[in-house]
Order: sequence, then structure tokens, then C-alpha cells
Amino acid sequence: MREHWLQVPEWSWNHSTENQPTYVHHWVQQLNEITHTPDMILYGAPISRSSISVSGASLYPTEFRRMWKGFATFNLDEDVDLTSFQVADAGDVTMHTTDILLSHQHIQETSAYLARRYPHTRTCMIGGDHSTTACAVRGIKEAFTNETIGILQLDTHLDVRDPAELGPANGTPIRQLIDGDIVKGKDVINIGLHGYYNAKPLIDYAKEHNIQMVTLKQARKQGLIHTIQRALEQLSAKVDRIYVTVDMDVLDISVAPGVPASTPGGMTAIELFDSLLEIGKHPAVQHIDFVCLDPSKDSPVAETVKTGVYAWLQFISGCMLQTR
Amino acid sequence: MREHWLQVPEWSWNHSTENQPTYVHHWVQQLNEITHTPDMILYGAPISRSSISVSGASLYPTEFRRMWKGFATFNLDEDVDLTSFQVADAGDVTMHTTDILLSHQHIQETSAYLARRYPHTRTCMIGGDHSTTACAVRGIKEAFTNETIGILQLDTHLDVRDPAELGPANGTPIRQLIDGDIVKGKDVINIGLHGYYNAKPLIDYAKEHNIQMVTLKQARKQGLIHTIQRALEQLSAKVDRIYVTVDMDVLDISVAPGVPASTPGGMTAIELFDSLLEIGKHPAVQHIDFVCLDPSKDSPVAETVKTGVYAWLQFISGCMLQTR
Amino acid sequence: MREHWLQVPEWSWNHSTENQPTYVHHWVQQLNEITHTPDMILYGAPISRSSISVSGASLYPTEFRRMWKGFATFNLDEDVDLTSFQVADAGDVTMHTTDILLSHQHIQETSAYLARRYPHTRTCMIGGDHSTTACAVRGIKEAFTNETIGILQLDTHLDVRDPAELGPANGTPIRQLIDGDIVKGKDVINIGLHGYYNAKPLIDYAKEHNIQMVTLKQARKQGLIHTIQRALEQLSAKVDRIYVTVDMDVLDISVAPGVPASTPGGMTAIELFDSLLEIGKHPAVQHIDFVCLDPSKDSPVAETVKTGVYAWLQFISGCMLQTR
Amino acid sequence: MREHWLQVPEWSWNHSTENQPTYVHHWVQQLNEITHTPDMILYGAPISRSSISVSGASLYPTEFRRMWKGFATFNLDEDVDLTSFQVADAGDVTMHTTDILLSHQHIQETSAYLARRYPHTRTCMIGGDHSTTACAVRGIKEAFTNETIGILQLDTHLDVRDPAELGPANGTPIRQLIDGDIVKGKDVINIGLHGYYNAKPLIDYAKEHNIQMVTLKQARKQGLIHTIQRALEQLSAKVDRIYVTVDMDVLDISVAPGVPASTPGGMTAIELFDSLLEIGKHPAVQHIDFVCLDPSKDSPVAETVKTGVYAWLQFISGCMLQTR
Amino acid sequence: MREHWLQVPEWSWNHSTENQPTYVHHWVQQLNEITHTPDMILYGAPISRSSISVSGASLYPTEFRRMWKGFATFNLDEDVDLTSFQVADAGDVTMHTTDILLSHQHIQETSAYLARRYPHTRTCMIGGDHSTTACAVRGIKEAFTNETIGILQLDTHLDVRDPAELGPANGTPIRQLIDGDIVKGKDVINIGLHGYYNAKPLIDYAKEHNIQMVTLKQARKQGLIHTIQRALEQLSAKVDRIYVTVDMDVLDISVAPGVPASTPGGMTAIELFDSLLEIGKHPAVQHIDFVCLDPSKDSPVAETVKTGVYAWLQFISGCMLQTR
Amino acid sequence: MREHWLQVPEWSWNHSTENQPTYVHHWVQQLNEITHTPDMILYGAPISRSSISVSGASLYPTEFRRMWKGFATFNLDEDVDLTSFQVADAGDVTMHTTDILLSHQHIQETSAYLARRYPHTRTCMIGGDHSTTACAVRGIKEAFTNETIGILQLDTHLDVRDPAELGPANGTPIRQLIDGDIVKGKDVINIGLHGYYNAKPLIDYAKEHNIQMVTLKQARKQGLIHTIQRALEQLSAKVDRIYVTVDMDVLDISVAPGVPASTPGGMTAIELFDSLLEIGKHPAVQHIDFVCLDPSKDSPVAETVKTGVYAWLQFISGCMLQTR
Repeated sequence: MREHWLQVPEWSWNHSTENQPTYVHHWVQQLNEITHTPDMILYGAPISRSSISVSGASLYPTEFRRMWKGFATFNLDEDVDLTSFQVADAGDVTMHTTDILLSHQHIQETSAYLARRYPHTRTCMIGGDHSTTACAVRGIKEAFTNETIGILQLDTHLDVRDPAELGPANGTPIRQLIDGDIVKGKDVINIGLHGYYNAKPLIDYAKEHNIQMVTLKQARKQGLIHTIQRALEQLSAKVDRIYVTVDMDVLDISVAPGVPASTPGGMTAIELFDSLLEIGKHPAVQHIDFVCLDPSKDSPVAETVKTGVYAWLQFISGCMLQTR
Repeated sequence: MREHWLQVPEWSWNHSTENQPTYVHHWVQQLNEITHTPDMILYGAPISRSSISVSGASLYPTEFRRMWKGFATFNLDEDVDLTSFQVADAGDVTMHTTDILLSHQHIQETSAYLARRYPHTRTCMIGGDHSTTACAVRGIKEAFTNETIGILQLDTHLDVRDPAELGPANGTPIRQLIDGDIVKGKDVINIGLHGYYNAKPLIDYAKEHNIQMVTLKQARKQGLIHTIQRALEQLSAKVDRIYVTVDMDVLDISVAPGVPASTPGGMTAIELFDSLLEIGKHPAVQHIDFVCLDPSKDSPVAETVKTGVYAWLQFISGCMLQTR
Repeated sequence: MREHWLQVPEWSWNHSTENQPTYVHHWVQQLNEITHTPDMILYGAPISRSSISVSGASLYPTEFRRMWKGFATFNLDEDVDLTSFQVADAGDVTMHTTDILLSHQHIQETSAYLARRYPHTRTCMIGGDHSTTACAVRGIKEAFTNETIGILQLDTHLDVRDPAELGPANGTPIRQLIDGDIVKGKDVINIGLHGYYNAKPLIDYAKEHNIQMVTLKQARKQGLIHTIQRALEQLSAKVDRIYVTVDMDVLDISVAPGVPASTPGGMTAIELFDSLLEIGKHPAVQHIDFVCLDPSKDSPVAETVKTGVYAWLQFISGCMLQTR
Repeated sequence: MREHWLQVPEWSWNHSTENQPTYVHHWVQQLNEITHTPDMILYGAPISRSSISVSGASLYPTEFRRMWKGFATFNLDEDVDLTSFQVADAGDVTMHTTDILLSHQHIQETSAYLARRYPHTRTCMIGGDHSTTACAVRGIKEAFTNETIGILQLDTHLDVRDPAELGPANGTPIRQLIDGDIVKGKDVINIGLHGYYNAKPLIDYAKEHNIQMVTLKQARKQGLIHTIQRALEQLSAKVDRIYVTVDMDVLDISVAPGVPASTPGGMTAIELFDSLLEIGKHPAVQHIDFVCLDPSKDSPVAETVKTGVYAWLQFISGCMLQTR
Repeated sequence: MREHWLQVPEWSWNHSTENQPTYVHHWVQQLNEITHTPDMILYGAPISRSSISVSGASLYPTEFRRMWKGFATFNLDEDVDLTSFQVADAGDVTMHTTDILLSHQHIQETSAYLARRYPHTRTCMIGGDHSTTACAVRGIKEAFTNETIGILQLDTHLDVRDPAELGPANGTPIRQLIDGDIVKGKDVINIGLHGYYNAKPLIDYAKEHNIQMVTLKQARKQGLIHTIQRALEQLSAKVDRIYVTVDMDVLDISVAPGVPASTPGGMTAIELFDSLLEIGKHPAVQHIDFVCLDPSKDSPVAETVKTGVYAWLQFISGCMLQTR
Repeated sequence: MREHWLQVPEWSWNHSTENQPTYVHHWVQQLNEITHTPDMILYGAPISRSSISVSGASLYPTEFRRMWKGFATFNLDEDVDLTSFQVADAGDVTMHTTDILLSHQHIQETSAYLARRYPHTRTCMIGGDHSTTACAVRGIKEAFTNETIGILQLDTHLDVRDPAELGPANGTPIRQLIDGDIVKGKDVINIGLHGYYNAKPLIDYAKEHNIQMVTLKQARKQGLIHTIQRALEQLSAKVDRIYVTVDMDVLDISVAPGVPASTPGGMTAIELFDSLLEIGKHPAVQHIDFVCLDPSKDSPVAETVKTGVYAWLQFISGCMLQTR
């Protein structure tokens, strides 16, 4: 039986041997080419046929890697050189063309494999639609059976629709995890909710299961960074490891044309960047994913994908500030 | 003689009889199918051939109704379930293809009819270009001859160009109303003006007629919500009923690609949403319109129309908070 | 030998003789048609084949003039009528189709010519890509040999790449000027840097040459306007004249689709507008340019070009407030 | 057990009772509202998550019906009034969100149901991706167990990829039917193949199974209409009923931006229209489908969807000319 | 009373005095600057608020003149130098913002004025929507009261909708002229009809009034050029002067994205070009218009406007070949 | 001194060793990895800053290689398996950022190097703008000093503008070669000219130097393939080797949105494909280039780049049919 379903992505790894890398594509390494344990493992989960509405989020892992060539490895805001943090790209999980459950199984097994084999390394999954989060968290739970997992969710939606009705679609991951006893409702904090985008029965479910709903309006009133900090403190007091899931639809529609479910009233890019810097700083955050970005709908200047790469680098910057 | 010129819009009204509606299209009812008095009547005024520059704002009422399917009936920010507020859609005013004055007459007569027949119900007109506002206010004045009307205008422009030169075009409604003695200049407050978008002679007219001009810069300095509150208090102290007109070009061009006259430096979506929540809370606001949104120029993800629906729901949320 | 390389742009100058002009295209005059000394001279430097990546910034001077027809000559925010400030359009510098060095030479000679002939008049150059700044500053230095020049740069990038490698490309102007002893590194202040857009070796160069790097994050913490003020005070204490260069890529990608190098995390339009008002107020600022805006990539509603015209008018408003 | 999975589409059926309908949306009737047997039954199969690459073809049935409002019921070219031909819209087959096999089962059962219940009525299925064709043909075979079915395929691709590898994806329907003994390879004629869009092993499969491949180049040399006629004659001599499947990617990329798999060198719209008129004329053609059109990728003027509606009307015109 | 309503367009007329002009904008002259009688007078009728659906065809005259800078004055296909043919641009007819009837009156009076003042000069009107044709023909009839006028119409539609219902909208011009006894139905030949774009009652009207309907399919069968020739011969045998109206929606949707009413199945650009060359050759053709092109909907490369300029130059080439 | 300036492109070469390649990216090999002499050498000349108007044609070589993944290695129309023809990709010529003459020198030297080292191998250069053709032909002439070269040019333009005025820009290559005595005017045949796209003085130059101008109209009358054949026969009777240059602007604007200089009235894709098949068949054709395609302006579905790859494969198919 295969342990994992990773496929090396088709891009060139031209690491100059002498100089320090100055751009992301010269810095990130391929997992199967290194021998040491990296600080973070990156892997793609390119599936979006499990999305309720038409989505090309399956194209994101490839575009994410293509667009990172435009980013330098130095964070001017924090005066941090990223190159001492080691990121290894494990490639993408192999997907089946029509068997969605099998594809989900691959994600789960691969997540379990990576978590077991690199138990002290942060993992970062690039989706795919939000159904992938349920798979990844289940995989991690498999690897760390005795640990409790808490979820910090940045999202416009609760994602607690009923899998009995839809199957494991992108609207259901949090409910899958709660109903499946993988994560407790009280250990889920959603920051980013706003407006008229969650039907009453879903809110009722969330209340019933004690999911903590923090609207963007509340978060802004209290200070978004303060809200993030408090959420992480709360969770880390209760659980063994924190999984952060960033549904890119938490962004405002004006800055995220490439996220079909983004809405007016969402986060600004700056708010997302500040949040991720803060999240990276917290030692209990071991796992993160970025989901639901459909590059085929992005603006001609690839605004959303660029925002996605930036957000990911902010998380890494946070990790580095933590270890200082 | 016909009392009104309403045409039922061609969309399906599938109200499940048992469950509480969870999405807007299951919640809004058709005026001619209900017997009780609703809390708000919605009607469309689909004309834009009266616009100075080419505009497809006549297409907005239809797109507005099409896009509301994506909105739930629960406001998470305020924890308000909208379904206890009754909105009745009266359909669109019939327009003539080439006789602009006749079309304007239809809007006026229909507005008068609705105001007379439902004197205690809020009305909400979906334009159409800004010329429709003059018609609607005249119609309301006909219905309430003895009442004075004040106008709160959210707009980048003064809209006091000379109808003697242009006819009743979209740049003229406020001047039509002042020159026609329907509304006094001192009872008009415009919030949202900014930059270089009003020619000197128009500003001279406004000053001469004591229109209160509050620039966005001033409003932001004082707090936009505070500015809105003060404006409503001021107006309600002087007039019997307040008509609010929201020219969607008050929005910044980066969030309103579907409003050809939107400009850099305008309101953010959040500012508009907060304003409308506040406006809805004030009991003197009996009438509102949303005008000048051209869906044919909107972004591929319909950002502007979605923002328009959201803004309207914020007004309704405000109304509901008021009655609590 | 020719003194300058100015070509009159092909647009109509229909100045009504009787009335005060109310729109920009009726207010700006043609330099070769006036006899008095204007308050500002505008000229275009339409070159972008010196850009590292493909750019149509050479089209900006023409689009800038075409779009200004939509702007009135009255600034509502500041209650300022622009028409008492005299702007003269000198036209565009003649460019060679394939000889980039010759084109750069033309910009330099023309800038020198204008500075000599109108020593007390502000100049405003509309680029073109950022390589034009090095030419303009060298030309001004030629005209005022004994004066020191300081640079305030609003930019996401340092633009200190090595001309030895690239030639005088758009990534190199600041380095050209420092290495060429035209401007001292310590007399350059860059405000607007952020994120992951400058490679480590460039930051090293900047530090080594004492370029003052103010990140947007720092500026926002201290107050952007305050930061601008302090920068201008600092510079004016050290140098004889200040050259301001506005690389439009300092803007956030969500408000500047027409600037290919714009990024997430950049300035909002309002921040840019406020900055330019402040910059205009400072008497030591004698020269300004706006570069790197590619109208061929702009949004269908020309959002970026409109933002560019607005920013320029803010600078003029500032100049007028200064002279009050 | 349910016999079928049809859902009535949400659009208004405003048939004026007195006048003859002049536009398509006044002419087509709803199947569950009529009592007589119609000449054609239309149904949608809105699935595209079975597509190998990202596709929004699931949106086509709805857009198809929305766009037909722009078409009159009179064919000027043939001087035919369509209104004496009765088309009944049966609505869309219910799809499951994540269980592709179940969705396919629904299409098959519904196709079988319609074929059994209306054995003498032509059926027209609007896809969805090309995987739906395999389902529909299997359903029809269920209904007419003793009859042989032949397929005329207008397509740029053979669609004989291996379901053992991909599952029942959109590249596999013809192979599903051949390997499943539903249709014989020799009873499949593909017209429209061209260029470099079918890998060698697929051509080998086609040759081995005697699929008749007619390239567009050959067809044009012999006359496309003549080629169509001969193909229908050949098939009708061998089989009991002909199923025509129109993969819209047979169209040239310049006329079909809304078909992601369309290619340079494909059919012109006129060629497709002429072909469908001819196909409609042949009495053995009892079933047709139109697949793989993704309206979310269409041009702003909806060129491809309009072409799709036109093609369908041409087929109906052909049917009417036949019965004359 | 004013004789005409012509406004000089705002573009620069830089005719080098020495050399022969090589591009269109150096060749066309302004009517009010010449003293001789030109071979053709060009004028714009920038109205489209009379259009049934939203249209920006009013923007065409300006874009037409802007885009002609890309065209040389030499026709390589026919080896013809256009510069010996004199085209004078009379500018645009002044339009009222909201009084459509008045605007129409202006077009009629201006057309009459030009026809009277330059009785032997061809006129070419650039619309505007198709309602302008009725105005122009009435104006010409006023000028030549005793002459009969025939119309050759290249159009996908009959444009005989009822003005009693719509007013003088763009769907009605031919009916206005027939019902108003300006032109006889039998003296109208429409070439370009096809498909499903004319409702039955309109076809009935056309038949009743003996409008000659030649479908594109028929024309192609007989040869389009031959069909054009025969139509011109037929008309010239019956009437004194021929007015040609080119509704740009006669073009196929794939080559005319900038004509909202264009359809699949229409003319190719080559067919239109060949037709106009032929039309230009016929001496009875004294008047022509090009209508219904909306540049605001054109493709990014301005494909449709370029096609419009090309078509106009073909007509001129035809005129020159005639006089050889 | 360096012999050539080739840089290996950054793409992955995953040639499965066992199976026959079925897609282009598995078939094309890298020149520096093979030892035998290939049938064709491909190289890129990514420069477009020498273009008169803004162009991103420098991006074509990369996009060309990226898009070929969508093409199979079997030509169904001709029943030809391409895999027995060996194509080696030599990578791109190194360009300088601002020194256009140096970049041109690199192209020339590299072309000379390849021609000398592989004297019996066909070369195919992917531009870049049309200035690259002059460099390539000069390089080839250097390699084969004693041979005469003839040019078959598929182009809407003559490209004989004066380098004395523009430098070696993209409008000048044919004139550079004639004036530089590399190629004789009488040995240049241009097929594809049409309409109003060449100024009179350029046509005069062409006539004076006996360039053979075949308009598209003439070619279509005589049969395009026949015209191509005759041109190749004529040239091969006079010269030792034929260089074919395909300016992609020869294509009609409706099929080539990604070629800024394409025009209405140009070649269809099918005409181009048929021409290249014919050209490939002629043994005297040793060199070909494809220039002026700007992928940054292509349609969202990459129509033009796909057409470019297809055209190139047609040329290869022709070569293979020749050797049969």
C-alpha cells in the first residue's frame, strides 16, 4: 500500500549553488532532494470538483508556484531575510478525475504521512476548495491520535452545511470534522464572518455546537490583531495543536476577484497580511492551509494569486519572528 | 386614467409554505399577491436614456433581483433575522421607448399612487439613472401635499445642472426639485462630495440655494456615522419626511466598476454599508432610492450589483433595529 | 544644435475667451502660445522601451491629457479654484524609435532647457517609465550646477539595480544618480516600500549609500502625512531643491490595475492624494514626475489614469494652498 | 423508486393565450403542463464536475434558456414558422453535489424514462460535459433494448480515453459505449476531427474499433452537407435509431470562446448551422445532445450561447422540413 | 431659423501643405475650411438614446475619426490612391440630451441643408443608431422633393417595428419612411437577413408592403456581389436616387463584438468590404450611412471600429473606380 | 569571443524513455542534450523593444513552448505521426535590457552559428518583433556567403520603412536587407498584403526595388495554395535558399487578437495552415520565422498562441510529407 500520493510539480529547480537565493523560486527546495528536516513543508491539494459551484481552485497550486517568482526573499517591513527558514515543496497530491471520495482519501493519507514523518515541521497545504481541509485535519488527527486539534478559521462562511445532503463538498468541512468527532465545535473559532452570507439554519448549527463566531465588525472594533491573538491564546489553552484554515473568500471582493465566493464587506489585503504575521508568531500553530482561490477567474494582473503568495510569506515571516 | 404603471417582473416566486425563508428570493413577496400592508415596497424605474452619457442603469432593477439570490436573510453582524420584516416587490414602472417625458410622468404617477395607497409604508425605488429621483419626489409630494420633504443625498455630484439646457437629464434632479419648489435648497444635504467633479457654476448654485455640502473629507474627519446622524437630526427637525437618494457613484471607482461616474476618492463599501444601517435606523426616513448603477459595465464577478444589494439589506437591517 | 526636443501634442486648445474655464482641458494652456511665465510647466516623456518588463507607459502622456477632460477646475475638499494657477503644457519630448540612449539624452536636454529658461517655475514630467527620472534630474542638475538636489521617492521599489548590467533601464534611476554623483544617497528618501519586492543585494546597496527607507508600515504607524512632512523638512534642511518622483507602482494593485508593477499592500488612492496635497504645500519642491503608468493595461473604466490625474491635481492644490 | 429526476427550471412561462407566440420563450412549453405528446422534449443535464479540465458546462442549460428570449420563432432562410412544431421543456436532471456516479445514474434513468414514456418523440439533451452522452445513450438503449443505436458525432476529439484510468469523465463517452456493448464502433461516425488534438493511442483505438473518422478537411473537400447526408444514410442502413451528439468544441475557437476545448481550424458557425439543418431532416435521427459549452467563459456578448441556441433551432427547422 | 446644426469635431487638422497625405487624418478636410465642392461630405449623427436596448452608438462618430489614423490613403488591392478623391468632414449634428424628437429634427434639417447646398456631392452619415436613417432620408426628400428615393439596406433586421408603439426608435426607420410616404416599400431591398431575428408580424408587414427580402443564404447561393449588382440595377431603374443604409449588425457576431445586435450567421468582414466596393461603383448611390456600432462594447483591439473605417474606405474606392 | 548567445529555457524535459511521445512537450528535445543532427532547430529571439508601437512579442517564445503541451504529435488530417521528425529546442538568444543594437547582434551571431554548425538542418526562429528577421537573414548570409537568399514573406505590411529614420525597428527588416545587399528586392515575394495598411511611399519603394507584391485578393482569386506554390518555384529557380518569414499580422484581426497589428481583411487561420503545409513541402525552404505575436494581448483562451503553434506544426507536417 502506498504511504502517500505526492507528485513532483513540473517546474525547474535552478538553485545557484554559490549565492544566497534572492527570489522565492531560488529559495524553496524540493522535498525529495533534501536530507535535513525543513522548517515547513508545502504541498498542493488540487481538487475543486467537490465545490458546490463551478470552481477552478484546483489550478491554484500551480499558479501559486508560478507567481512566487515575482517575490524576493527579504521582508522589508520586518527587516527579515527569509532564506534562513527552510521551505520544502513536497509537490501535489495525486487526484482522481471522477472519484471525489478517492481524491479526498489521497489528501487525508498524504497529510497523515507528512505529519507522521515530519512531526515537528509545520505543514502548509495549498488548495483546492475547502473540502480539502476536512481531509487534511483528519489526516493530522490520524498521525497524532492522542492530541486535540483546534481550528482557527478565517472565512466569510461557516462551512457547516450538511454532508448528508451534499456529500463532502466545499461547504461542509467544519461540520464533517465536528460530526466526525475529529474536532470539537467549541475548539473552532471563525473570524471574518459578516453580512448576509450564512443562512439561519447554519448559524443555528454553529450556536448549538458552540463554534465561536467573531464577525469582522466585532474584530475591527476590538482590533483585528488583538482578536487574532486572543483567539490563538484561547485555543492553545485548550488544544494540543492549532490548524489554521484560510478560506480566501474572507477577502473583500474588490481585492479578490479570483475568489468566486468573496463578497463586499470582507477583509482588506492588509488585514489579511497582518493577521497572518500574527498567526505565524504563535508556536501552537503547526498547520495551515489556503483554499478556494480560483486563478482562472483572477484579474488580468493576477491580483488575487499575488495576494495569496504574499499572505503565505507573511505567515513565514511570523514563524521567523517567533523563533528569534 | 391609469393610477399607476407597474409591471410585474418576470421572475419565479417559489415561496415554500412551510419553512422560514433563508434566502432573499424566498423572502421578498410580490405586492399583488399579498393582502396585508408590507413594511417596505420595492419598485423599479428602469430608465437610463435620460442619462447625459451612455448608461445601462435601466438594466439594474432586473439584475438587482437576479443577484439577491446569493444573499441570506440573516444579518450576522447585527444578529438580525430579516424575515420578520415584510418586503413587497411592486415590479417595474412601464417605460416608453423614446418619450422620456412620458416615462418620467409614469414614475411620478406611480410614486404618487404607492405613497397614497400605502402612506405608512417605506418605499424603495431601484433606478434607473438619477433623473428618476426628481420624478419620485414629485410623486410623493403630490401624495402628501401638506408635508415638507427633505433630501439626504449620498453623491459625488451635486446634480444641479440646468434642465433648461439639458431637459430633465440625470445631472439635474436636485435643481428640478428646488426650482420647482418641491424641496427647499436648505433642506438638501449632500454627503460624499469630493475632489474635482463639480464645476464652479454648480457649486455657486448650491451655495446660493443653501444646499448643505459635506465633503467626504469633512465627514471622515468628524466620523461618517456621526455626520449621517447629525444630518438626519437636522433634516427631521425641519421637514416632515426624509427622502434618501443614494447615487451609487458616491462609491470609490475601485469598488464600483459598474458605476460609470464613480471616481477615485469615493466611499468604501464599508462606509456605504455603515451609512445605510444608520439611515435605516432613523424613523423620519420614509423613502429611499438607489440609482446610476449600470450592470452592463460591472466586473465579471458582479461586484457592484452585489454591493448594491448589500447596501439595500443594510437599510432594512437599520429599519428593523429601529423598531426594536 | 537644438536646445530642446519638445513636440506639441495633437489636441485641440479651445479656450473660450470670455468665461472662466470650468474643466481642465479649458484651463491648461499651451506653452508656446503664452507669453507670461506660468506657475507650472507640464511635459511628457513618452518612453517605455527602457523598461525591464514589457510596458506601455509611453502611452501615458497622451491618455493623461485625454482623461483630464473629466475633471473640473474646482477642488471641493479644499474650496480652491484652480484657475488662478497657471499650467502650461510644453508637449512631449521627441523620442527615437530604437536608440534608447538618444531618447534619454533628449529628455535630459529638454529638462535642462526648461529649468534654465523657467528657473522659478515648477516642472512636472509625465513618464514614461522610471528611467526618465534619472534623465530629468541630470538635466535639472545641469541647469542648476551649484545647487544640491534631494529626492523624495514614493515607490514600492528602490530602483537601484545595476546599470552596468541592464543599461539605463527603469530599475536603475536612483543608482544612476548616486553613482553619477548627481544626488547623494543620504539625500534620497523612499516612502512606500513594503513587502517582498526588493532583493537583498538592493537593500544592501541602499543601506550602504544611506538611502532613507521608510516602509509603508512605519509611515502608517507614524501617520503618513506626518512622515511626508518630516521627510520634506529633513530634505529641505540639507538640499537646495527637492525633486519628487512618484512611481505609480506605489499604489496598491487593487486600485492600480494599470501599473503592471503595483503590488498588494501598497498605498490606497486616498493616501496618495493626501500625500501629494502635502508635498505640493512645501516650497522646496520644484520638480515632480509621475511614472510607470501603462494605460493599455488599465481597467475598462480607466481607473488608474483617473487616479493619476487626480493625484496631479492634488499636487497643484497643495501648491496653491502654499501660496495663500 | 423514482422513475426520473427532473426538476422544473425556475423561469416564468407566460404564454399569452390568444396570439401566436413570436419569440422562443413564448413558444416552448413546460412538459408537465401539457397533455398532448410534443414533437420534441428538451431536458438539461447540468453536470461538469466530470470534466477532465475545469468546466462550467453545468451552467449551460440555464443560460441556454435565458438566451433564447432573443430568438424569434420564424426562420427567414427557410420561410418556416416554428410554432407548429411543439417543443416541451422537461426541466433539468437533478444532480448530486459530489457523487458523480449517482448523477450519471440520474441522467441515465431520466433518459430511459423519457424514451419509454414518449417513444415517438425526439429528445434533445442540453449538457453538461460530454460524459452525459454515455448516460443518455445507455438510458435510451434501456428503453429500446432490441434496437441498435448508431452515433453521429460532431467533435474535434474522439472521446475514447480510457474510463479505467479516468472514470466516466468527459473524454471517455464513446469508449464507454463501445466497451459496454451499447454501441458498436463501426456504428460511430465522427465528423469534425482535425489537426493535432487526438493522441496516437486514441487514434489506434478508433481504428481498431472501426470508428469512422472523417476529418473536417475531407468533409470540406467532399462538401460538408454531402458528407453529413452520406453519414446519415450509412448509419440508418445499419441501425434502428441515430443519436447525434454535438460537442460544441467542434467549432473554431474564433467563434466559440465559450467552449474551452475549441481549437483553431474547427467548424465555422455557418457550417454547424447547415449541418444541423441537414441532420434534422433525416427521419432516423431521434435523439440529439449539445454538450461542453461553458457560458462562464463566453465572450461578453454571449456569442457562443447564441450560436448554441441557433444551432438547436436549425435542427428543429430541419425536423419541420422533413415532415413537410 | 438655423439652417443646420453642425458642430465641428474636436480634432486637429494638421495638413502638411507640401507633401501628399499618406494617412486618412491628413487627407480628410474640414468642410468649413475648404472653398471647392468636395466629392463626399461626411457628418456624424451621434444619438443612441432612441435605441430600444442600451446602446453607445452615439460614441461612434468620434471613435470612427480617432481610428482612421491607422489607415493609409492607398488601396493596395485596387491600386488606387484615394487622395484625388476629396472628403470633407462637416462635423457632428448637435443633439439634445433628453428631447429625442428634437434631436431627430436636427438630423433631418441638417441632412436637408447639406443635400440642398451640395446637390451633386455624395453624403455619408455616421450614426448613431438606426433611427437616424429615417431622419436623413426625410431630409434628403425635402431637398429633392420631386425625386423618388430607393433604399438598399444591409441589415440582419427589417426595422419595420411600429412607431405608434415605440416612437421613432431604432427598430422602426423603414416603417416610418414607408408609412410616411417618403419611400415605397417596393423600393426597399434588404440584403443580409438570416436566421431567427425577425418576428412573424414584421415579416408579414414586409411582405404586405413588397419590401424585397434577400436572405444572406440566397445571396451567397447567387453570389453576393451579383446580388448587390442586381439590386442596384433594379432600384436605379425605378428611382431617382439610391440611399444605402448599412446597419453594422449585418456583420457576424464573431467579427463585430462592438455591435450589440450582431448575430451568428451574419456577413463576414470580407463580404461587407466586397459589397461596399460594388456599391460605391454604382453612380445612382448618392447617400450612405453606417449605423449601430457601439464602440464602448468593442473588443480591446477595436476590431469593429477598424472594420467600420475599412468598409467606408471601400465605398470610397468604389466611387473612384466608377469615375475612372 | 562567444560563438552564440543561447540560453536554455526554464522548462522541464520529462521524456519518458520507453513510450513514443504523444504530446509535443514530450517530443521536442533540448539541443544540448542530443548528439545526432536534428531535422529542425528551434530558437527564440525574445525582443520587442525594437517595435514601433508597444509590443509584448518578446513574451512569445515562452508562451509558445507553454502552449504546445496542448498539442498531440499526430496530424489527423494528413495521417502523419510527427515523432519521426526530430525537433531540437536550442533555447532563447540572450537579450540586453536597453541596448537594442547589441541584442540584434546577438541574434545575428547566433543565427550564423547555428547555420554553420548545422548546415543541413532547417532552422525556425520564434520572435520577437519583425526586426529579428533582418538579423537572422544576415546571420544566415554570413554562414553561407556564396549563396543567394530569397524571401517569402506572409505579411499585411511591406516592412520597408526607412532605418535611417527609425533605426532597425520592426517596420524596416526587408529594407535593411535590400539596402544592405543581403537580399535582392526581386527575390522578395510578399503574399498577404491587403487594404489600406501601407503608405504610398512604401509601395513606391517596393515597386522601385521589384519586390513582388501579391495581394490577398489576387491570391484568393488564383487560389492561395497555387499562389504559394508558384512563388516558391519562382524563388527556388533564382536563389539558393529560401527564408520564409511569417508576420502573424497577416492573420485577420478576428482570429488574431494577440497580434496588435492584425487587421480586418486578413488571412483566416485555415488559409495560414494550408499555406504552411505547402511551404513545408518545398525542399528549398531551409529557414522560417514566426514573429509579432504578443501573448499579453491574446484572448483569454489564448486563441492566437494556439494558432501559432498549429501553424508551426503544419510547417513540420509539410516537411515530413516532402521527405516521404
